[in-house]
Amino acid sequence: MPVRLDSSKADFAAAFAALLAAKREISEDVDASVRGIIADVVARGDEAVIDYTSRFDHLDLAPGTLRVTQAEIDAARAECEPRALKALELAAERIRAFHERQKPADLSFTDALGVELGWRWTAIEAVGLYVPGGTAAYPSSVLMNAIPAKVAGCPRVVMVVPSPGGLLNPLVLAAAKLAGADEIYRIGGAQAIAALAYGTRTIAPVAKITGPGNAYVAAAKRRVFGHVGIDMIAGPSEVLVIADDSANPAWIAADLLAQAEHDTASQSILITDSPALADAVEREVAAQLETLPRANIAGASWRDFGAVITLGSLDEAPALADRLAAEHLEIITVDAEGLAARIRNAGAIFLGGHTPEAIGDYVGGSNHVLPTARSAKFSSGLGVLDFMKRTSILKCGPEQLAALGPPAITLGEAEGLAAHARSVSIRSNRVL
Amino acid sequence: MPVRLDSSKADFAAAFAALLAAKREISEDVDASVRGIIADVVARGDEAVIDYTSRFDHLDLAPGTLRVTQAEIDAARAECEPRALKALELAAERIRAFHERQKPADLSFTDALGVELGWRWTAIEAVGLYVPGGTAAYPSSVLMNAIPAKVAGCPRVVMVVPSPGGLLNPLVLAAAKLAGADEIYRIGGAQAIAALAYGTRTIAPVAKITGPGNAYVAAAKRRVFGHVGIDMIAGPSEVLVIADDSANPAWIAADLLAQAEHDTASQSILITDSPALADAVEREVAAQLETLPRANIAGASWRDFGAVITLGSLDEAPALADRLAAEHLEIITVDAEGLAARIRNAGAIFLGGHTPEAIGDYVGGSNHVLPTARSAKFSSGLGVLDFMKRTSILKCGPEQLAALGPPAITLGEAEGLAAHARSVSIRSNRVL
Repeated sequence: MPVRLDSSKADFAAAFAALLAAKREISEDVDASVRGIIADVVARGDEAVIDYTSRFDHLDLAPGTLRVTQAEIDAARAECEPRALKALELAAERIRAFHERQKPADLSFTDALGVELGWRWTAIEAVGLYVPGGTAAYPSSVLMNAIPAKVAGCPRVVMVVPSPGGLLNPLVLAAAKLAGADEIYRIGGAQAIAALAYGTRTIAPVAKITGPGNAYVAAAKRRVFGHVGIDMIAGPSEVLVIADDSANPAWIAADLLAQAEHDTASQSILITDSPALADAVEREVAAQLETLPRANIAGASWRDFGAVITLGSLDEAPALADRLAAEHLEIITVDAEGLAARIRNAGAIFLGGHTPEAIGDYVGGSNHVLPTARSAKFSSGLGVLDFMKRTSILKCGPEQLAALGPPAITLGEAEGLAAHARSVSIRSNRVL
Repeated sequence: MPVRLDSSKADFAAAFAALLAAKREISEDVDASVRGIIADVVARGDEAVIDYTSRFDHLDLAPGTLRVTQAEIDAARAECEPRALKALELAAERIRAFHERQKPADLSFTDALGVELGWRWTAIEAVGLYVPGGTAAYPSSVLMNAIPAKVAGCPRVVMVVPSPGGLLNPLVLAAAKLAGADEIYRIGGAQAIAALAYGTRTIAPVAKITGPGNAYVAAAKRRVFGHVGIDMIAGPSEVLVIADDSANPAWIAADLLAQAEHDTASQSILITDSPALADAVEREVAAQLETLPRANIAGASWRDFGAVITLGSLDEAPALADRLAAEHLEIITVDAEGLAARIRNAGAIFLGGHTPEAIGDYVGGSNHVLPTARSAKFSSGLGVLDFMKRTSILKCGPEQLAALGPPAITLGEAEGLAAHARSVSIRSNRVL
């Protein structure tokens, strides 16, 4: 049974703090091995990548076969169920349309002094996309990472996906093709991250790496951070549902379980002002678990990390939601918009009873790569801006320099940076 | 003497690659001490912070005196030179005006199916700003970090600044006041980063930490990353000047030295199609070094990491500039705008002979916290977006769910996530 909290109880503050502090992930300490793997790939390139692929993925590759060929991609597409392919195409189209709206505008303006100022956004030249293999190979995640990169205008999107025993998920390859990935390599783990970051004879280096992975991949991303850019280190998935008694308990239970089936470390929380709804949802979760294929995973997540919180009033909800800073927040109340407007921290908000989070996972159009582990307090879901960077631009003429030079000289001198001051004063006899 | 490269020489590609690969920073391995300091601050809070402040800053504090008082700030302001204060005020005003233009717009739209989509930007609730003490205490950096946070709308901006032996730079306090910092604590080092990230009895935790620091601060920021957000880990400063023979060699030399005076690990590079200009600049640098207060630092930087590169044609410059991905790029050529348009990677671009980089450091208005160490390939200077985060919003009604439900179910099933599929199908008898 999940923990049940009641905001009217004396121990509520302590119980809620304990819920926030609960550690959901066992952090495997793989940093030493990862450091060795990276150093080896830097030193021996393809050869090292091939060695680790043989050892970890039980797959023997020759340098010429690292890259997945066009013929393989075409064959994979032909193998996919037409209905799945069509759903993937709809998803890709909607994701593209949504992300097109995120393209930032350049700015150029002249201020009152005549100084020309502004900035210019440019796409990152080459990005790497890590795609997990095996059971966690999600074609939808390929779309969610690669499409924003292509919408941003990245000329080179490189995908790596491990192929344990030589197997690749056909829908993953189809998604890569749909999203416009330019190169695909059948490698994974820390060795793939190292190859992307530092390059090998076969794989030219990229400037940024995104996408989820296991403990080795996460540790490798942390290590190469700085040399290349990375996205967030993804943690287990989470949903917070805020509901009143207008909500359907069976639907809420299904949403809580959809999150819980991802991982035993996932977290599903219900906040409601209706104890009756809380009871009904708990009963429904138990009933639906009976017939769920991944009941072991979902059941463990719900038992260990699930929570049901009852409030005297939904007015208490925004403050709690902000502290939870959930990756996914569903609001199923009479005035969902009004409540949403009072919440600061959430990765994505799903409004009303007819917006299950799974719609956002696949076909809503918004991105499903979202901040986990309370990081919605300070970060955003993946988007077009993650694949671009901004260069600021400044231009003065002699008059502008005459106006701005003296205060710049004053500040340079105040900071003890005489060469800074001189680089201004040398340009004007007046201020020399 | 700096290295001199000529693109017409056979060894140019190798020499340029060596220049790119040159390691400028000795990375001190302080990670083990930093881990201990953080754990201690988490365990003992203020008491640990006070102990480390006594040990490292030779300053004995009582818990009630960690915070800099309003009276101290007022006294510091009174102590500042009026001219410096006025320059700081002009800088603050211009930085504020520039960053106001970076405030992102929310979006809300309804697509052809009737799905409501969009996003909302919100400010990070609490941010910490690290300000180095001692000789590297730059009031301009206080403005560059705190003003974007305040423009973003962060309700709580917390500044920490070490005060070795009890001394604080009055202009730093004046800048904090001007920028609108809400709390200032006289602490520094890894202990200050830990206090900001995890909180103590005196200091409530923040959600993101920005600002430069020494090796301990950088290691501590890396360690708390994930629990809180951080900005980039700043490396030594850099300038790349691209010039033709229309440029004034004395001005260029002054700009190269302004960058070099920051740190012996700073890097100043000139690229030109004029060997005569290259020679003249080298002579000017040598001459100007003679009278520079920080000649030891600037001279070592120029000698060890400076470079002068001559090209057959400036058409070769964009590709080289993109590989250098300089923090600061000055273009002093007849068609500076045209050349700038062909360059993808730079933190900030300064156009024409009357825009020395130092103007951008202080009073231009754009941010001087910019990506170093080639990271302009994948990241941007500090700005308002660094202090905000985006929440995506999705809303379907019954008809939209009926349209999008079936492909979502198909993809959920294709990914083996039955509970995802069920969370959609349960909402509709038709698709149950």
